[in-house]
Parts: sequence; structure tokens; C-alpha cells
Amino acid sequence: MKHLILKKGEDRRIRLGHLWIFSNEVDTKKSPLKEFEPGESAVVVNAQGRPIGSAYVNPNSLICARMISNRPHEGLTEALLDRRISQALTLRESMFDKPFYRMVFAEGDFLPGLVIDRYDDLLVAQLTTAGMEKMKDQITSVLCDILHPKAILFRNDSANRPLEGLDRYVEQAVGTVPAKICLEENGVKFEVPMIEGQKTGWFYDQRTNRRDFASFCNGKRVLDAFCYAGSFGCNAVKAGAKEVTFLDASKIALDAAVHNASLNGSPDKVDTVYGDALDTLQELKDSGAQFDVICVDPPAFIKRKKAFKEGLSAYQRVNKLAMDLVVDGGIVTSCSCSQHLSAQDLNRVLLHAASKSKTRIQTLIQGHQGPDHPVHPAMPETHYLKSYTVRVFKS
Amino acid sequence: MKHLILKKGEDRRIRLGHLWIFSNEVDTKKSPLKEFEPGESAVVVNAQGRPIGSAYVNPNSLICARMISNRPHEGLTEALLDRRISQALTLRESMFDKPFYRMVFAEGDFLPGLVIDRYDDLLVAQLTTAGMEKMKDQITSVLCDILHPKAILFRNDSANRPLEGLDRYVEQAVGTVPAKICLEENGVKFEVPMIEGQKTGWFYDQRTNRRDFASFCNGKRVLDAFCYAGSFGCNAVKAGAKEVTFLDASKIALDAAVHNASLNGSPDKVDTVYGDALDTLQELKDSGAQFDVICVDPPAFIKRKKAFKEGLSAYQRVNKLAMDLVVDGGIVTSCSCSQHLSAQDLNRVLLHAASKSKTRIQTLIQGHQGPDHPVHPAMPETHYLKSYTVRVFKS
Repeated sequence: MKHLILKKGEDRRIRLGHLWIFSNEVDTKKSPLKEFEPGESAVVVNAQGRPIGSAYVNPNSLICARMISNRPHEGLTEALLDRRISQALTLRESMFDKPFYRMVFAEGDFLPGLVIDRYDDLLVAQLTTAGMEKMKDQITSVLCDILHPKAILFRNDSANRPLEGLDRYVEQAVGTVPAKICLEENGVKFEVPMIEGQKTGWFYDQRTNRRDFASFCNGKRVLDAFCYAGSFGCNAVKAGAKEVTFLDASKIALDAAVHNASLNGSPDKVDTVYGDALDTLQELKDSGAQFDVICVDPPAFIKRKKAFKEGLSAYQRVNKLAMDLVVDGGIVTSCSCSQHLSAQDLNRVLLHAASKSKTRIQTLIQGHQGPDHPVHPAMPETHYLKSYTVRVFKS
Repeated sequence: MKHLILKKGEDRRIRLGHLWIFSNEVDTKKSPLKEFEPGESAVVVNAQGRPIGSAYVNPNSLICARMISNRPHEGLTEALLDRRISQALTLRESMFDKPFYRMVFAEGDFLPGLVIDRYDDLLVAQLTTAGMEKMKDQITSVLCDILHPKAILFRNDSANRPLEGLDRYVEQAVGTVPAKICLEENGVKFEVPMIEGQKTGWFYDQRTNRRDFASFCNGKRVLDAFCYAGSFGCNAVKAGAKEVTFLDASKIALDAAVHNASLNGSPDKVDTVYGDALDTLQELKDSGAQFDVICVDPPAFIKRKKAFKEGLSAYQRVNKLAMDLVVDGGIVTSCSCSQHLSAQDLNRVLLHAASKSKTRIQTLIQGHQGPDHPVHPAMPETHYLKSYTVRVFKS
């Protein structure tokens, strides 16, 4: 393997465990990036000439290399994939009694560029880097050896692939993943559209936050805003909610949510509200609607750092409306999957919303992405999902 | 009520929800602190003369007033106590199916200076401010009205009471709280020494972290370091742990832990290790001991800001030893109840320990104090308990 030589001092972050090397950190006089093929493995060497591990390289990407092993001569091989994927699977099997989970979470499982979701004997994978794209056949082979799945679907259509010089496509690599799949999470059943659905079809990352949310819902009137396939609301139904209202800007999502609610119990009433969340929340408020428990789980309002201010304002408005709509002593669970919004930021959003809504709040639960989305402790970037469950007092 | 007048700009933090007023924030020319009795209620007024709420005052304390209501003329009355305690109780009753919990958590329940733990029909209260001390009879009366408890014990012996000019004492106010009490948490049974025990007898704050810890313990060899009455280890026993080792520097604690283990199942082996944790962890390591799952829940190593560096080093050493003692792919749950150690600090402690132990870690769970210890979102001081559950790889 060729050597990728870092500038002086640029090994420090890596030695603390971070997995990304940026192109300006490479001594390109000694190891020109253009001499590497996209996805090629390399020995990473510090300025003193000491090997510190191995990475795969992409000369066309801002993140020009991702560490794959602290063994300098290992590189990204089928054996490494087999070892890491097996370790990741062992963890999930020990934590969950049903085979529905994110099986591999990229950097969090020391496999940058690789995400795999499991739906029993169906696997949906995403490759987001040239290094992993190059190993597609070996990944398929390892997955077949370990799990003998009925089907493997590559959803290689993420928006970031062009940054790696990759095209976007969806491919049935083994068998056929059907258009709708069934899954169970927290004992709650769901049927979700797969290929048409968002990302890999389901957001397993909210599992523990949904479980915690449900613990407040027995006998209550519940609003699931930005409901998608009704994940929070259906956990509420299973927990004995009296009434559940689903709100989404997609009619397909609302239909799925109502169907999923029917799989999990019989509340007195299941309602839907169709439309933009900010508008419809305002209309609900104007109509005098009130709820005991509300979940606000919007898409990332802040996709880039530049959009921070605007996104922050959207979070504040939607949470202010949630506090307006909840009863005195009621519960609001507020989530953010914006990587650029820290937990402290979200806390401030809620304080601001409470102040605008003339309410007082106390924080009961601080939530995070579930344990099948491990955080890499040296990479704050891998901790993207935050949630607060607060109780709201009107006086 | 007299007016407590703030200096210009000093109302800002209060208007965002913070409950503490420091003596240097008061306009003592217009409202001399020495004119207030310890514990006296006052209207809080900003520099522009606008009332912003009410507080109780202690002229002898650095925190010279604590906000009690955003109604300027309310003050700390029996009616307010009744309302707030009832709100706190309603929350706990909705969250827990058994009557064992922290019923009132001071600032987190908008009742600064008052902590109440419930053990079914026994209540253990702590008053930590002159304002609450003054209301002892009214608190007793409200608790009797709402809950008709068999006994109320005031554990008014906390180390901070002298800062408020209060003496330290323990008093059986109603009935008699027995020396040992039984409780159930996460379906796990415990018998704990009450009057001799630590603080109010039991640390309910770790409830959810114990539940999460137990989810990794089925069939495993578990080490509960700093075990006190065996709370983490007994959750592990209930979850089907194969072997449990309790480690503590108190023989009374170890006896309690072993007894509590016997109440919750029959692992193949229950061991105890008696002695200072750092020494005994080192000895375990030297003897070649290994564990699948380890909990490290030390007392606050950093009690004051000044002790930060020394405390940090203690956290690093104990976590390094835990990573040495765990098997490849094993689990370490690491806790800190030091208010001065932030979650980010604890994360760095673990990265440092992993580096020293030549291991790689991934973070599965970020834990916090349980929901019966609500965090006041404008007061970071109220978020004191942090925990990380990491998986440790040896290569």
C-alpha cells in the first residue's frame, strides 16, 4: 500500500480516535493525492515518518481519507469487513429480541461510508464513499455468509454521493426487497413503504425516544407532528392513548400512519391533519384544539451551517406552537436530527419557545439516537439526534 | 411583602427562568439585604421598578434569594407548596407503577430547597434553605393532606445547611421511619438501611441507567464497582447475569448488596471485593480477572471546582482500569454525579482512558438522571448526573 503522509501535528486528532483526514492535512508534496485511486487503501504516516494506521483515500473529496484500522498495513479488505460487520451484528443481537435494527452505523461502528438496516431477512444498505463503493461485491458476499438474507437492496442514492464523485442509484443486489415491509420495534408493529420511503425506509434511530414518549401516553390525547409513518403515534396507541392525531405534509405518510395505528390497538379516535406543519399547527391552535402529549419530530431544519439562523427560527416557531397546544401540565417531546444543532442549542430553543408561549417548562428526559446508532466518542459529528421531553406549565 | 430590587440588567437571567439571585445582583442601597429575615418572602423588582416575580430571601447566603413564583405577590405559602407538590406527585404517579421515587426535586420541580423521596407510605424529606426550613410545619401538613403517610422523616443534615445559617439534624416528624426499608425499582427489590444510609437512603436518580445497564447483562459476568447497596448489580441479577461481583469500600454496603442480590434471583456466583476501588481494581487486574459488563458509579470525585484536576485524574484512572478489566467487545457503563464534570468532560475522560488502555470504544448510550429528577432547563446546575455506556474493543 502507498503511504499517505500527514503534515506536522495533523496526526493528533487521528490519534485521539477521529476517523477523518481532510485534504489540507496531507503533505501533498511527499504524497500527492492525485496519485491515489478513489477508494484505494493506504498506510497513514505522520510527519515523523511513523505509521499510525490505515485509511482508504478519495483524492476528489474534501474528506480525502477515512481511517479504517489502527493496524497500518490492514487496509479495507473483505476480512476487515467480515470482522467489523460481525462485531456490529453481535451487539444488536445482544440488545434486541427482534431482528429489526440499524445493523451497521458507519463511523459509529468503525465502518465509514457503510450503513445497513436490517428488516429480519431483508437488508437495505447505503454506500456513501468511494472506498465502500469499491467493496460492494465483498460487502454483499460477507452479508450473505453471515446472515443468508432473502434480499439485499443498495439504496445508493444519498445526496452526498456526488461529493465523492459517485453516481446515485438503487439496486436490488440479492433477491428482491418488496415495496412494503413489516417491522416491529418496542413491541409495536409497522408496515412501511420501502423503495418509495425516506432514506432506508425506516428511522430506527428514534427507538428509545419513542419508547420513552409512549410512557406518557396512556389514556391521553396525543399529537404526532411530522408523523411520517406514525412511529411516535403508534407507540402511543400501543401504550393505550385515548386519541391520536397524525400531522404530516404527505398524504401517503398519513395513510401509512393510520394503517399502522390500526395494527396496534383501538384508540377512541384517530385523526389526521394534512399540510405544512407550521400552518396546520397554527390552525389547530386557532381552532382551540388541545392535546395532553405532543411529539415534534421535524426533518433536519438545519442541513448546512449556513442555514443555522433560519433553521433555528423554524425550530423555535414549531416548538412554541407545540407549547401553545399542550394542556397545563402536559408533555412535549421535541426532537432535532440536525447535526449542526447541539443539545444545548435545542435546550435554548425550548427555553425561548416557553418564554414566547408564556409557559414554564421542566425537562424530564434528555434523549439521543438509539444504541444501534453508536456515537464515535471522538467524533461529535456522529451524535446527530437529540430530543428533550419537557412538561409544560401554563402559570 | 418587601421589595427586593435588582441592579440594572440583573433581571435578565431570572427572566429566562433561572431561580437564583446572588447577593451582588441586588441593589442593596435601595433594598438592604439585612432588612430581610432569613426565609422571608419578597417581591422581586427589576431596576426599572417592574415586579418580575417573588422569591424567598436569605441575607446570610451567597445565593441571597430563590425565585418561587412568577406571580409577584405570591410568596412561599402553604397554598403554593400544596400546588407544586401536587403537580410533582401527579407526574410521578403517571410515570411509575410503584410508589417509589423522588417525589420532589428542588429547583427541578420549582421548589428550591425541598427534596422529598417516597418509599410507599414513608417519606424522607430534606430542607436545605432557610426559606424551606421556615415552612417545615406547612410542608408536613401538606404531605399529610395529600398522601396520609405512615411516617415523615426530615434528614436535615446535609453539608450545605451551615451555608444557609441552619443547624444539622435528623427528625422523625410524623410516625417513625424504620431503620430498614424495602423498595422496588425497575421490578428489582431492595432492602436498604435508612437512617444510617447515605443521603435520603437510596439514589433513585440512576433508575433509567440501571435499567439500560441490565439490558446488557443476561448470561454475563458482571462487576458492580462502587456498588453501595448493589443497585446496578441487582438489576443485572434480575436480568439473568451469570456471575456478579460487588466492589465497595464499606462492609455494610457489601452485606446489603449480597442480601439484595438474593432477593432478585440466583446467579451462579455472587462475589464481593472489599476495599478502596482504585487499589482493588488494580489487584483484580493483576490477578487476571475479566468481566463482560462493568459498572463504574463512583461518588462525586469533584465536589468543588477547585478539585477539578485531581478529580478528573481519579475518573481517568478508574475508567482506565475498567477498560483493562473488560473483555474484548465488552461493556462499560461509566457514571459521574459531579456537577462540575460536564457530559463532554466525561466523554473526554473515557477517550483518555481508552487511549491509556490501548482500546477503542463506541458509545451506545448517553444516560442522565431519571425523570423523577427533572432538570430545570435554564439551570445547568440541576443536570448533575451523566453516564456513558461504551463498548470496548481490544484491537
